[in-house]
Amino acid sequence: MMTVRLGISGIGQQGGAYAGFISEGKVKNMVIGAICDIDPEKKAMCAEKYPDVPFFDNYIDMLESGKVDAVVTTVPHYLHPEMGIEALKRDIHALVEKPAGVYTKQVKELNVFAATKPDVTFGIFFNQRTNPLYQKLKELIDSDEIGKIRRTNWIITTWWRPQGYYDSSAWRATWEGEGGGVLVNQAPHQIDLLQWICGMPKKVYSNVKYGYQRNIAVEDEVTTLLDYGNGATGVFITATHDVLGTDRLEILGDKGKIIVDDSKKITIKRLNTPESEMSASMSMQDVMKIFMGGDVSDVYSEEVLEFESVWGAQHIAVLENFAANIVDGTPLIAPGSDGIHGVALANAIHLSSWLGKEVELPIDEELYLAELNKKIEEEKSLVNQ
Amino acid sequence: MMTVRLGISGIGQQGGAYAGFISEGKVKNMVIGAICDIDPEKKAMCAEKYPDVPFFDNYIDMLESGKVDAVVTTVPHYLHPEMGIEALKRDIHALVEKPAGVYTKQVKELNVFAATKPDVTFGIFFNQRTNPLYQKLKELIDSDEIGKIRRTNWIITTWWRPQGYYDSSAWRATWEGEGGGVLVNQAPHQIDLLQWICGMPKKVYSNVKYGYQRNIAVEDEVTTLLDYGNGATGVFITATHDVLGTDRLEILGDKGKIIVDDSKKITIKRLNTPESEMSASMSMQDVMKIFMGGDVSDVYSEEVLEFESVWGAQHIAVLENFAANIVDGTPLIAPGSDGIHGVALANAIHLSSWLGKEVELPIDEELYLAELNKKIEEEKSLVNQ
Repeated sequence: MMTVRLGISGIGQQGGAYAGFISEGKVKNMVIGAICDIDPEKKAMCAEKYPDVPFFDNYIDMLESGKVDAVVTTVPHYLHPEMGIEALKRDIHALVEKPAGVYTKQVKELNVFAATKPDVTFGIFFNQRTNPLYQKLKELIDSDEIGKIRRTNWIITTWWRPQGYYDSSAWRATWEGEGGGVLVNQAPHQIDLLQWICGMPKKVYSNVKYGYQRNIAVEDEVTTLLDYGNGATGVFITATHDVLGTDRLEILGDKGKIIVDDSKKITIKRLNTPESEMSASMSMQDVMKIFMGGDVSDVYSEEVLEFESVWGAQHIAVLENFAANIVDGTPLIAPGSDGIHGVALANAIHLSSWLGKEVELPIDEELYLAELNKKIEEEKSLVNQ
Repeated sequence: MMTVRLGISGIGQQGGAYAGFISEGKVKNMVIGAICDIDPEKKAMCAEKYPDVPFFDNYIDMLESGKVDAVVTTVPHYLHPEMGIEALKRDIHALVEKPAGVYTKQVKELNVFAATKPDVTFGIFFNQRTNPLYQKLKELIDSDEIGKIRRTNWIITTWWRPQGYYDSSAWRATWEGEGGGVLVNQAPHQIDLLQWICGMPKKVYSNVKYGYQRNIAVEDEVTTLLDYGNGATGVFITATHDVLGTDRLEILGDKGKIIVDDSKKITIKRLNTPESEMSASMSMQDVMKIFMGGDVSDVYSEEVLEFESVWGAQHIAVLENFAANIVDGTPLIAPGSDGIHGVALANAIHLSSWLGKEVELPIDEELYLAELNKKIEEEKSLVNQ
């Protein structure tokens, strides 16, 4: 059985964690092939910690070294598409970090190129897709357990970050360095899960607060109304200033409701009769009977599923799944081409707030890029003042 | 001690319930002075049920009969302002049903007239304001227990109504008969509570579904984004098609968070240090220590308050408070002039959806009325086809 030699491009917090998992033998069929970073301090650190692993200060050299079969792009978001393309070009399997990129135009280039390399594995690091809770949730929705979706509502404000986090690097929380705030750095997981499980909305209206509770240029709070185009609506809320963060996802369907609390508990309420049939057949007197002390078990049954989440297990699962796809063709949980959906949604949320109006998906990607570049220019002129 | 003789104008479901409470002696200092209804069947019913109570088929006659000191307007929403004015004009104390009216222009007329009659009691039937839970919640917010509000989020979809409810009367859920759906009939309580406790937003954007899951002209689902103009934001969601209704209000402040579940339980999380100070002083390492298995009691303390709600108790409390104001000047829990806020907010939500854009409060009330009249005309032409 083949062992995948992974090149880790960027050995910061994420890259360092992955190196740890792999070197501790926690990832089946995977070893560290090489490490690459532009920071000399990282080179010194790796020389001590991973003395037997080849180190490069240029990722192209690493890709061409013959030391790696695959690469993971733990580098700033803007670089993910470029590195993905350069790897695939050399038939090196690519696992891009989330988000797939900052703007859809660059992610589309990556996807188009990847499509020309169907035999090279192309994955994206959506580790939360490996969370058994969200796999179960997707299964419940896909198998029509609560019927056609009418509403989604996710408050995900467990992404608390103090000012010190933003001040830790000059590129953090800047338009030029990250291309956004909570939408591109913390919430891409939930944005992906929401579209993966409930589908992409057709229209988006957002109220986005830039530098609201933090001294940053980018967004630290997002409130978005989603319109799925088929009558269904949704709300997506995220923020980095709620230290007592809420994580509550509610999905209402014609045949029931699912509530996910803290990404740990799924409560499924299944109606005995679809709501539309209840509406058609019941009188207000019947309704009063049920709700004024009647027996609600006549109406629905409830099931509660609890999940344990172990930190790191999801990341290991993504690496293993990626290796398995290379080794024996096991289907990818998060194919790389899926990365564009979350970027498209995040871009739409930004653009709606910039234009002050509802936007339709897919958005005008040239307009988005022009607006983003304006932000970058404004930011530069502020820094240079 | 004076006993208030209440005239009940309209003896439908609400008027009938109030008559029951009063005749059973449940309302201190109040008796039924007279009943009025245009429906001959109601006259026959009252002759049997309340043989000693004078009955009128015209409310002006009732107001001028000398039989009533006060009146409650349990009639269709459009009529509340007119009846309130006619009562006050004759120095008859007026308790208007919610909503105070359908559009702010008519409610303003009522308020302006009421201001000329400071010695006549003018109340509005916001029974949920007497709910000890919401009184406690208001006290918590007013006394700055969780600091300056940053976000509000209310999902209140416990207003399930089957099609049969809407079909029970021709005027129900029509623009001409009710002037709206869930916003003017079911949710005015929560719209009032939200503004009473958290203040009025400055801007509103809404996604409103008209006849989405019911065969009606008016709205059965509302998703609204609130902007308080000081950085704070909010979301308000209501619907009549969720048989497994959610009632969850979350208020985030600089010093903590309050979650109200099912209008029965308040969970108060008080931060030991305001969030803004935590952000300013903590490093990402400190954050990791807390959230990766650290002791959260270092960060906040939690208190849970449970409340029992007895059906009818709130309505009795409003009637008693209204009588007490007349008898001995006890302050009103819901002064009539407060009714305009909820109407203004509901109008703004409608208008935003009609215009497809964010609207500022106060909205252009002439524009609102013109748009409402358009809906009424459209409805008429459909009926006449």
